[in-house]
Amino acid sequence: MKNIATQTRAPGGPAAADLAPLAQARHLLLDLDGTLVRQNEAIDGAAELLERFEGRFAIVSNNSTHTAQGLALRLRRLGLRAPPERIVLAGELAVSLLARQHPTARLMVVGTPALQRHARALGFRLVASEAEFVLLALDMRFSHARLGAVANELLRGARLVVTNADATHPGPHGRVVPETGSLLAAVLTASGVQPWRIVGKPEPLLFEEGLRCLGAEPASTVVIGDNPATDAAGAARLGMACLLVGAAPEAVAPSVAGLLLPRATAEVTALPARPPERSRLSTA
Amino acid sequence: MKNIATQTRAPGGPAAADLAPLAQARHLLLDLDGTLVRQNEAIDGAAELLERFEGRFAIVSNNSTHTAQGLALRLRRLGLRAPPERIVLAGELAVSLLARQHPTARLMVVGTPALQRHARALGFRLVASEAEFVLLALDMRFSHARLGAVANELLRGARLVVTNADATHPGPHGRVVPETGSLLAAVLTASGVQPWRIVGKPEPLLFEEGLRCLGAEPASTVVIGDNPATDAAGAARLGMACLLVGAAPEAVAPSVAGLLLPRATAEVTALPARPPERSRLSTA
Repeated sequence: MKNIATQTRAPGGPAAADLAPLAQARHLLLDLDGTLVRQNEAIDGAAELLERFEGRFAIVSNNSTHTAQGLALRLRRLGLRAPPERIVLAGELAVSLLARQHPTARLMVVGTPALQRHARALGFRLVASEAEFVLLALDMRFSHARLGAVANELLRGARLVVTNADATHPGPHGRVVPETGSLLAAVLTASGVQPWRIVGKPEPLLFEEGLRCLGAEPASTVVIGDNPATDAAGAARLGMACLLVGAAPEAVAPSVAGLLLPRATAEVTALPARPPERSRLSTA
Repeated sequence: MKNIATQTRAPGGPAAADLAPLAQARHLLLDLDGTLVRQNEAIDGAAELLERFEGRFAIVSNNSTHTAQGLALRLRRLGLRAPPERIVLAGELAVSLLARQHPTARLMVVGTPALQRHARALGFRLVASEAEFVLLALDMRFSHARLGAVANELLRGARLVVTNADATHPGPHGRVVPETGSLLAAVLTASGVQPWRIVGKPEPLLFEEGLRCLGAEPASTVVIGDNPATDAAGAARLGMACLLVGAAPEAVAPSVAGLLLPRATAEVTALPARPPERSRLSTA
């Protein structure tokens, strides 16, 4: 299957070919924020999409603050059923990859208490200095002092693992919330040290883990997301088709609901440039 | 006077011409950290240089955490006599420039309590939201929440004034301390908004203020500093000669003490690549 989804859009609206990959897809790799949920709401069509592909999807997200267990519960409260073993998050995956390759390393985790607990659960002794690896994730307690600690650890020789390079994510009331990439910019400037590894999309690690847990092949797997720079670019690197939804110019539908409609209806629905539909689903 | 100081260095050591500008200088613009002081020590030769040019020097520093009054006291404890009206600091100057041009503006100050007090003393009502200007300085209480607040103010239309773009300054025990430029990198990434004005060197504002308070002309004024990117580059923009001291390859002497020696001795002193001399001067 070629990555035709983001290449063959006709002027004025998505071509019929745009939606063909979904019909042919054996497996789906699904972005989370902006694709399935927004703030504390499920996006229109998300529940139906998960039902239709039950057992054949994985959620792959640059999220570095949650664990899959915690997120599965949160999604369930929004009416979305996703088993934790099919949720691949950049923060958790970064810790898991380190645990596989450097299980005894001295690790500094700059991130949420949940991510630090996960690291301890995988056997890491977390350190505040003399680290061999610094894991930088979204850390709401990030501070000047923490920035200084990270910069000096890197200058001393620690290797920097970054969960994701996203600059922001959408917050309440149209505000932005600084993401790991903004903290990374400060770290890069203060230390001059480049990351040893970036886990999140568009890097391939998350997608590869999603394929692995599904036992899926790239050729028969479709990525669905809302971000050209992370979802579409990352899918293209692995030769996977990608359907973008949302407000991006390349999007084939304003929300995943548009992917589920009969083809002719989907074309009509996708034509007007209107904001994505939202629905607050009842607690399942 | 041409800016020959950083251009005519002979291989193997500074040429005699390198030190000529000091003999010809009517006025000096002096960098502070790395040039006159390092941590809590006066650098060798600093006290003598200030005495020799008494009444004819101004200190121009990218420092954004102190006030001139506070710094003059601190320098005096290190044996360095510099009147506060001849100390031009990026943080204070940024507030003063705003007070001259936008005295009634709604101003958010991200910086030390000292800088915030200075802004209030100049008549500003400091705000936490709906700012017209955000002043970003070195803020030891910088946090993820503060980064988010600044980014959203800029996205709402506030203009960003930055005291200086330095990435770090040296801290104790060979560690770096993240400076305003590192915080700026996070702000730029999170907001995508470029600064409206950067006050610190190598921008010309600090040097211009130093010249103004001395009643000095660029042609007969010499800049002495330790940083090619801020001191030398900034001096060159205004057509001023610059003598670099310290460990930079362009330096003509390891410390300002080397500028005060008879010419022949200075050449010999500057030849070995040794670290700058430090002396802890008694409290004057």
